[in-house]
Amino acid sequence: MAHVTDTESPVAVVAGVGPGLGASLARRFAREGCRVALFARSEAYVEGLADDLPDPGEGLGVRVDLGNPASIRQGFERVREAFGPVDLLVNHASASPWDGLLDCTVRDFDDALDVGVRGAFCCSQEAVSDMLDAGGGTVVFTGATTSVRGRKGAVAFSAAKFGARGLAESMARELGPEGIHVAHVVLDGGILPPDREVDDPENYLDPDAIADSYWHLATQDRSAWTLELDLRPHTESF
Amino acid sequence: MAHVTDTESPVAVVAGVGPGLGASLARRFAREGCRVALFARSEAYVEGLADDLPDPGEGLGVRVDLGNPASIRQGFERVREAFGPVDLLVNHASASPWDGLLDCTVRDFDDALDVGVRGAFCCSQEAVSDMLDAGGGTVVFTGATTSVRGRKGAVAFSAAKFGARGLAESMARELGPEGIHVAHVVLDGGILPPDREVDDPENYLDPDAIADSYWHLATQDRSAWTLELDLRPHTESF
Amino acid sequence: MAHVTDTESPVAVVAGVGPGLGASLARRFAREGCRVALFARSEAYVEGLADDLPDPGEGLGVRVDLGNPASIRQGFERVREAFGPVDLLVNHASASPWDGLLDCTVRDFDDALDVGVRGAFCCSQEAVSDMLDAGGGTVVFTGATTSVRGRKGAVAFSAAKFGARGLAESMARELGPEGIHVAHVVLDGGILPPDREVDDPENYLDPDAIADSYWHLATQDRSAWTLELDLRPHTESF
Amino acid sequence: MAHVTDTESPVAVVAGVGPGLGASLARRFAREGCRVALFARSEAYVEGLADDLPDPGEGLGVRVDLGNPASIRQGFERVREAFGPVDLLVNHASASPWDGLLDCTVRDFDDALDVGVRGAFCCSQEAVSDMLDAGGGTVVFTGATTSVRGRKGAVAFSAAKFGARGLAESMARELGPEGIHVAHVVLDGGILPPDREVDDPENYLDPDAIADSYWHLATQDRSAWTLELDLRPHTESF
Repeated sequence: MAHVTDTESPVAVVAGVGPGLGASLARRFAREGCRVALFARSEAYVEGLADDLPDPGEGLGVRVDLGNPASIRQGFERVREAFGPVDLLVNHASASPWDGLLDCTVRDFDDALDVGVRGAFCCSQEAVSDMLDAGGGTVVFTGATTSVRGRKGAVAFSAAKFGARGLAESMARELGPEGIHVAHVVLDGGILPPDREVDDPENYLDPDAIADSYWHLATQDRSAWTLELDLRPHTESF
Repeated sequence: MAHVTDTESPVAVVAGVGPGLGASLARRFAREGCRVALFARSEAYVEGLADDLPDPGEGLGVRVDLGNPASIRQGFERVREAFGPVDLLVNHASASPWDGLLDCTVRDFDDALDVGVRGAFCCSQEAVSDMLDAGGGTVVFTGATTSVRGRKGAVAFSAAKFGARGLAESMARELGPEGIHVAHVVLDGGILPPDREVDDPENYLDPDAIADSYWHLATQDRSAWTLELDLRPHTESF
Repeated sequence: MAHVTDTESPVAVVAGVGPGLGASLARRFAREGCRVALFARSEAYVEGLADDLPDPGEGLGVRVDLGNPASIRQGFERVREAFGPVDLLVNHASASPWDGLLDCTVRDFDDALDVGVRGAFCCSQEAVSDMLDAGGGTVVFTGATTSVRGRKGAVAFSAAKFGARGLAESMARELGPEGIHVAHVVLDGGILPPDREVDDPENYLDPDAIADSYWHLATQDRSAWTLELDLRPHTESF
Repeated sequence: MAHVTDTESPVAVVAGVGPGLGASLARRFAREGCRVALFARSEAYVEGLADDLPDPGEGLGVRVDLGNPASIRQGFERVREAFGPVDLLVNHASASPWDGLLDCTVRDFDDALDVGVRGAFCCSQEAVSDMLDAGGGTVVFTGATTSVRGRKGAVAFSAAKFGARGLAESMARELGPEGIHVAHVVLDGGILPPDREVDDPENYLDPDAIADSYWHLATQDRSAWTLELDLRPHTESF
């Protein structure tokens, strides 16, 4: 059994939606019957996106600052008022400057951890609390190559992506026996940008194809759950 | 695009079929429209299984000794005669006694490498040669926890499972750009046995659920391919 | 060549000293001719320890709150005034409650990241800035099993230990070419407590033996540097 | 305690000695008081090397085909006759063509596994059998980047290096509690060739520096043993 497929109109939250993957996830989840809430810093952006869903009534844009625990709590409150308890969460945010050790400010380092690690922690607390009541649910973390291989010249991004992966692993071991599936996806490659031409689209991750694997994770039977999978374009050298 | 979904009646080979996962893979691939060949040492077993497929004409049991390169070549010849070139291969075999260093014989160590590593190599040579002609295809390796964590008291099994994973990674890097998807699945837990009672089925990998993720791998769009994923029951402690 | 062995009376900072490993590191570094500064929250403790070094004049206890960037800066200023620029840094601190997802407070989660990740970042900025001027140096991170395997029921500790490892990897790749060696040690097992009896000392990491490998890292020739090694008692099952 | 340092004139076997690292290991072990046996295919080479040791009477060159279990047994017999039981073994051999999947012959694939995996297994059986009698000893495997990351265009080398690492991990878990230390070293970079000029020696692993870390492994106290460490030149990008 998989909680998400056993639930009528499951409620999904995509925390940290952007123009590329966030939109594809939202559309895919909506197409599968989910009601989808989108968290982002800019209200205009997320509302535009929610209106763009197949059935506008099923989409909700919420302005949330993922670096701020109170703002996260309020975001989940709005989701619960509109749709009810959360069944599916994607921890997708990161805010990390790519600076080397001496160029990175303490402020930027803090921001990277606040958004990328503590933000995922706070969102997970909110969502998992709903999922425990429901007896099931799925949390997917969006990772990157840097989640498993610290990147030269990106100390804050490396610390944040590793930190979020450590959180995901800990949660997976704690929550699996409770029927909550926690997974971590390592995106290895650039995501095809929605709004500009690229030299060769073959060299990019298609966000709709990524969404396909996220949905697969959300619907895996609990007798065979994945903790981690990687995704990359077939042309990527790795 | 995904080669397997773009091909009418794709041809799948499950090399090293057993009563549990092998049968589930065969049934699932057949249900998705594949013609499925099953390799195993006992002809009686594989023929019985092929007859059991939804449409018996689409299943082929072949007696193959995966420790023997000539037998593997002959097995693929029979598949090509019956169905045509191969689109999907599952390297599933292993033959490894669980002995510690001093108890393992050279003969048993050799067998473990011959079946588990060289067998996968020979099957891959045959199948990939077809796939290169067709411009696409998928090879999935069935791994185990021991593929990523050498197991105490199982020197030959550890060497063979690591060795097959090294082969899979090398092939993935070589063949991805050619449009051939190579993936490695880490099965972490016991597979629910088809023929006997267990205390609590919740603690086992359901082979049909495993087959679901194998099929997902076979149909991933080539803009977002997975090299490795793990699968375990939600109750597994890991 | 190895900077630490080429330098007369190199200056070592052990950031986050405790009664066990911290003291062993301090004594070992002092025995090898280092002047050693010890950072800890309790001034009484670190001063007692510094007095305990073979040559008391070569030890300096500094009260530093590793969760506070300003306190870290002041600590390094005191070291530079007393001894000069820093050649060797051990990032050793962690402050992580072992709580599951819903029991961990935002405050405790923040503290874990502040001390365990940002503290190591701030100490590294200070020390590496000295090392770049000197053309060499060594930074060793003290990790744990949880650095590479998220621990059930310890979300903050898992996030912090992964985060520090990501920082270490990023720094190693950036700073190696500058002649600065960054290494990460995975301690897998309990450290023998200095102040109480245990059932069987064989089952514990001896802090003097750990210090032996830290010193080996500090003196590796730069043609063969280690990014990561693990240490565990020979009886440990892993 | 560490068996090798507790033993007078410990006996070391370097299996698969070559002009670079093999010679450095032999010289270093001899300098530390070991009697050193060198296994290689060419008798002329290994005898020349043994004569080159600080104290020629303490070196023994033995012609051994590491792909042949009987030859390995005979090699260890000669060592025991000359020096007595073995305390330290370095599994150093590999014989792997760098070919892609379709270009690698079954014969070459077999050779790679026979020398790189089964050879290490057979050497380990011989040496560990002596070590169990003595109550201690050390086995070090020489790995490569390819041991942890399958290499494009090198299927046999990837399978063999992964396979040997799986063997090492399994042995470490089995034999640690018996007082035998098994370690695996990942050499990440080219080894400085002894017999020709290179553009910039900074970009190579110095074999004497590698030997330094091997000796550190051999002398680690058993309360803090390393399973795996990596070594690379400080300029290596990784």
